[in-house]
Amino acid sequence: MGTQVGTQTIKFDNMPKIVSHAAIVGPKEGEGPLASYFDQILEDVLWGEDSWEKAESKILKEAVLMSIKKASLNLSDIRYIFSGDLLSQLIGTSFALRPLGVPFFGVYGACSTMGESLILAAMTVEAGFADYCLATTSSHFCGAEKQFRFPLEYGSQRPPTSTWTVTGSGAVIVSKIGTGPKITYAIPGKIVDLGAMDPMDMGAVMAPAAADTIVSFFKDTGKQPSDLDLIATGDLGKYGSKLLIELVKKEGYDLTSNYIDCGMEIFDSESQNTLAGGSGCGCSAVTLAGYILEKMEDKEINKLLFVPTGAMLSTVSSNEGESIPGIAHGVVLEN
Amino acid sequence: MGTQVGTQTIKFDNMPKIVSHAAIVGPKEGEGPLASYFDQILEDVLWGEDSWEKAESKILKEAVLMSIKKASLNLSDIRYIFSGDLLSQLIGTSFALRPLGVPFFGVYGACSTMGESLILAAMTVEAGFADYCLATTSSHFCGAEKQFRFPLEYGSQRPPTSTWTVTGSGAVIVSKIGTGPKITYAIPGKIVDLGAMDPMDMGAVMAPAAADTIVSFFKDTGKQPSDLDLIATGDLGKYGSKLLIELVKKEGYDLTSNYIDCGMEIFDSESQNTLAGGSGCGCSAVTLAGYILEKMEDKEINKLLFVPTGAMLSTVSSNEGESIPGIAHGVVLEN
Repeated sequence: MGTQVGTQTIKFDNMPKIVSHAAIVGPKEGEGPLASYFDQILEDVLWGEDSWEKAESKILKEAVLMSIKKASLNLSDIRYIFSGDLLSQLIGTSFALRPLGVPFFGVYGACSTMGESLILAAMTVEAGFADYCLATTSSHFCGAEKQFRFPLEYGSQRPPTSTWTVTGSGAVIVSKIGTGPKITYAIPGKIVDLGAMDPMDMGAVMAPAAADTIVSFFKDTGKQPSDLDLIATGDLGKYGSKLLIELVKKEGYDLTSNYIDCGMEIFDSESQNTLAGGSGCGCSAVTLAGYILEKMEDKEINKLLFVPTGAMLSTVSSNEGESIPGIAHGVVLEN
Repeated sequence: MGTQVGTQTIKFDNMPKIVSHAAIVGPKEGEGPLASYFDQILEDVLWGEDSWEKAESKILKEAVLMSIKKASLNLSDIRYIFSGDLLSQLIGTSFALRPLGVPFFGVYGACSTMGESLILAAMTVEAGFADYCLATTSSHFCGAEKQFRFPLEYGSQRPPTSTWTVTGSGAVIVSKIGTGPKITYAIPGKIVDLGAMDPMDMGAVMAPAAADTIVSFFKDTGKQPSDLDLIATGDLGKYGSKLLIELVKKEGYDLTSNYIDCGMEIFDSESQNTLAGGSGCGCSAVTLAGYILEKMEDKEINKLLFVPTGAMLSTVSSNEGESIPGIAHGVVLEN
């Protein structure tokens, strides 16, 4: 059973395992540096559907089914699914899961959602409420642009601090038994808002939240960055990552030797014109479920702090002059 | 530690307790039959704020703080908050919780959100991940109309099957120790979609999901409706409630003697012109946190099955011709 550590962290004594993972991505992600790690790369962003939202639902559903198949499990083995996405009222998720008949917890942490769903799946398995839970999330570039920014057809210009929403879904199965990376700690995040106002600079919004979660973990456990092989944030991008390193340094911790940001790994920003990097719920999800978990299975990474990052704004809150709160949820995985 | 029961249900062996509850409602709810049970009735729906969304955030934040105060706890005693609301990207919740600095799990189950947040809070406390968790949700009539239906200024006509979104927030504190109704079972819901298309008839959408959750509980546990003093759904309204009773009867269970719907309790639909009844995340939340938990403390109700109900649509999904999936999360409370 789990133990409370410090003010915020949970230690998993039973250490639930990630026994399966699947990542499906869009064509642009399939042209990026992580291409060889994904299970499936789509040829087009609609995948035979007639809307971007339906395509996103299909991607999420297929990632879920693929993760189950890769584990040689049946759908009925999955007791609960934890999932959410960026689309208002979680329609990406709810329509994806509609045909599956698995009890479902809808979660929302903006682009930190993979952290939240993974924490809740781990808590559920650790406590014995389920033998297998599935944690997943998705995003779709076109659906996100339509909802949060401008119609794609405008061809609007983007500032250098803006990011490119990843089209894709990552799904992982958390299990009481079996083999795979163990989930050893969770650090549910607080909402942090330093007053940033620019929805085209999400890195600046989310970096303070990521710093808060990472520093809380070190303070709660007495650990140091050097106790980990890798610290991976979700989608801070080029500018947010620098800010994170500075903020964490002020608290006395040095991230410079073993830190990456999923948003900077998934695209080659220069050749792919993705500016500050990748973003969206799918960004950290496919980088985890594709790239990082493969590296863990190959023992190239043995101790990971995974910190997906989210910006809790909506078009309404921005239009009403609100600043943008950030949140980051942390999970430690160990071989 | 919890036990898995049947395919869907969790039995809480440690039985987390609801040690505090608070409900704040708008003026219309304060004119309804449950007025005397609410902690605070607002004089106007803006409560000094300059937008409906900001007013909703204030209501949620104040309900949270009131529940903490009523328990003679401090904010720092609350380890995690589980909350969500109807507004896109959960801005009602995230802006409400922004100043509080408590680690936060954003959840979304449409109007079933109070069930989901309560289940997750109970799971977290049961497993020892926290001593105190807070479960809450909110809704606001004006914000919901603006987002999902028509601008209020249109004064659009409403069909008899439509419901009236409750303005209010209910918050409960779930604790390992202390006195109060015990949480004994949770039944996380599945997404159920029988193809209903009419966003002005949510009762028809959600009744099959409520039936699924209720019948699953009976099948998983071998219990009968007569084992409970009260079964309370969230916001099926006048027509959805009738449909629920029929659907559950087909499965061999009779709800006619001890069933209510929060949406039918909170307003006097004839004198208050609320048509099929109340709805929104706040509907079941304030009816639980105001009315039902008072009745449990007075021992008028000793065994409750609480089943908030949600419709997982968005304006985008409806515009794209999708039917409307429903979900219902069940929680059993016992003295």
